[in-house]
Amino acid sequence: MADLPRSPLAVPLPDLPVLAGVRFATAQAGIRYQGRTDVLLAEFAEGTTVAGVFTKNLCPGAPVTYCREALKGGLARGLVVNAGNANVFNGLAGTRAVEATAAAAAAALGARPEQIFLASTGVIGEPLPAHKIVAVMDRLQSGLAAGHFEQAARAIMTTDTFPKAATRTARLGGVEVRITGIAKGSGMVAPDMATMLAFLFTDAAIPAAALQSLLARAVEHSFNCITIDSDTSTSDSVLLFATGQAGNKPTEDAAQLADFRRALGEVAHDLALQVVRDGEGARKLVRITVEGAVSNASARRIGLAIANSPLVKTAIAGGDANWGRIVMAVGKAGEPADRDKLGVAIGGIWMAQNGSIVPGYNEAPVVAHMLGREIEVAVDIGLGGGHATVWTCDLTHGYIDINGAYRS
Amino acid sequence: MADLPRSPLAVPLPDLPVLAGVRFATAQAGIRYQGRTDVLLAEFAEGTTVAGVFTKNLCPGAPVTYCREALKGGLARGLVVNAGNANVFNGLAGTRAVEATAAAAAAALGARPEQIFLASTGVIGEPLPAHKIVAVMDRLQSGLAAGHFEQAARAIMTTDTFPKAATRTARLGGVEVRITGIAKGSGMVAPDMATMLAFLFTDAAIPAAALQSLLARAVEHSFNCITIDSDTSTSDSVLLFATGQAGNKPTEDAAQLADFRRALGEVAHDLALQVVRDGEGARKLVRITVEGAVSNASARRIGLAIANSPLVKTAIAGGDANWGRIVMAVGKAGEPADRDKLGVAIGGIWMAQNGSIVPGYNEAPVVAHMLGREIEVAVDIGLGGGHATVWTCDLTHGYIDINGAYRS
Repeated sequence: MADLPRSPLAVPLPDLPVLAGVRFATAQAGIRYQGRTDVLLAEFAEGTTVAGVFTKNLCPGAPVTYCREALKGGLARGLVVNAGNANVFNGLAGTRAVEATAAAAAAALGARPEQIFLASTGVIGEPLPAHKIVAVMDRLQSGLAAGHFEQAARAIMTTDTFPKAATRTARLGGVEVRITGIAKGSGMVAPDMATMLAFLFTDAAIPAAALQSLLARAVEHSFNCITIDSDTSTSDSVLLFATGQAGNKPTEDAAQLADFRRALGEVAHDLALQVVRDGEGARKLVRITVEGAVSNASARRIGLAIANSPLVKTAIAGGDANWGRIVMAVGKAGEPADRDKLGVAIGGIWMAQNGSIVPGYNEAPVVAHMLGREIEVAVDIGLGGGHATVWTCDLTHGYIDINGAYRS
Repeated sequence: MADLPRSPLAVPLPDLPVLAGVRFATAQAGIRYQGRTDVLLAEFAEGTTVAGVFTKNLCPGAPVTYCREALKGGLARGLVVNAGNANVFNGLAGTRAVEATAAAAAAALGARPEQIFLASTGVIGEPLPAHKIVAVMDRLQSGLAAGHFEQAARAIMTTDTFPKAATRTARLGGVEVRITGIAKGSGMVAPDMATMLAFLFTDAAIPAAALQSLLARAVEHSFNCITIDSDTSTSDSVLLFATGQAGNKPTEDAAQLADFRRALGEVAHDLALQVVRDGEGARKLVRITVEGAVSNASARRIGLAIANSPLVKTAIAGGDANWGRIVMAVGKAGEPADRDKLGVAIGGIWMAQNGSIVPGYNEAPVVAHMLGREIEVAVDIGLGGGHATVWTCDLTHGYIDINGAYRS
């Protein structure tokens, strides 16, 4: 792995207080990388509930298939994550690797294998040397410690250029609870390393079914509203563990969970934006707001069509407020749109409205805005009340450098 | 417009015999480019039938809207194409520009405006100076001459690096007929210039309704099976004009039209591949064959998901036979697929089969194949009899250079 320069969009790691009921340990298993940690073990208190959302890719990795099954129990005692090998497209050998890893972690934590959750990120199609993970399991177990979120965030990086974490507090049943998450994104040098993983932890007590619907909603408005390059990894996983150590009475009541929902949404949103900030070759963070669509779902699809357009992304990389390409992307989205009602704004200035250019719009603030690191695009479809916001990054030579280099 | 180097995938212009019933003239109208022709006028014999297929983009240019209406008459006497300005997103001014151009051409050719067809390619959102086209119309009319396909192919180029044409003959009703086509693709320097235009001409006599279904079928298997970067232009147009000068008896009989259908398909396919060969920054031509899908439509969607994947395209640019990214693209297509039945071949060598790598496959011919200009990817979904072939090019620094430069 080459040393990539830190993304110009990087943000510093926040303070990450201890979270009751979660302990971490990391180790150097030498799966692919040398001289850095590449395995994470997390231990959860008895009674920890769990929720998960996984890639929609129809060729998922073995850990995703394993987690979907384990999730049915709703309880978690441990999590093992490795970087360097995604354990994807390995057939029966992939299944054996997840079974061996889960068995070793269960033994080390005194738990059942179906209470162990797994995620892998790295190269596709090479057998995962699970014996290297098994070999460090006892050392991991004896090293478990509270806090250590930064070490955890670093151990799951592949070619991310900065570790990613976020934390918030919420009131729940008269008690303050905390939600802390870590994530890795899609900085890639060796090809195939483009998995989005996020792990969220809370000391709240929330039954698994309620936790699942809270997580699904949070993911829908955060991780599912970002795109780097339109390519969906075979390994994307977001897991949320609730240790129940904060002392609140377990609840499924929507009103009681409102503040928790707000805080969970903020953590997920914060992490999702950090992933975009570390997109391959990213030099600019782009927010695309769509309003006036026939529905929110339609607005989101239009937003993603703009965000995934190579012509829009290269224009932004070049500092070009090219609203013509945005019009093209709206039109190709396949969603209801009327050319003659369409408006496009960049940096808050409406350059086009009602289907043609706004004569004499003030170009100076638009040009200045395009030189910045954070670009705001707004589109008014002019048909209804549907709206959505999506985030992406620009498409630069860095992306070609990172992904077009011959796999070593 | 900067001078782009000729694509390494370029092919020479074929011999293009005179086609009875079609005359061409070109002129320098100075719409955007200086020192080159930028307007094409074609004149068709009385009784020429016409068919057309247009962009599915919901924000189409004014010429597309105009042609869709004119097509209802089924007859054509003239075609005007300009390069340098796409006349898109110009509101009422766009409509007035097409009306002025059609009226001038109709007057020059002694035809009705609804018998004139129009296409424009170039920058979006700037008013088209139709008066510059009108000003050269008389000169164009007096310069009309048979043959001159090369001049026609050159006048419609924007930043294409080579002119594109193809020709075939067919037997129809005991007579030899000819089909000749010209096209422009998506070489871009100044942003927004990414229109795919193709104009096909035949001396056969075929009623408009039959011509339309023949063209729709040919486009489905040629232009609709190529992709440069997944972005659908607002101006894509394919028009087919049948002058009826070859002497065949007009027919709608499918059996009689079989050889014409074959030849039309070959001309469309030839032109479509030339467009890919001149894709922005293209260094390699990629053929993707999908078999074993649940239907032909499903196979085509899987093929396009592979062809549009930035990670697949950058891997090919880097000479990397990265089948893991192809697996990812199959999985993200959203079409029925079973990870454990999937196979991937590059250059005819099956690297993965039945869901995992083929142990000890011969890598040497794969590596050699990846160094070539023409890359063959085959995917076996393993579920049914559906198959499709799509074509694309690689994604290189050249694409970023061309599309990320600030619009001048």
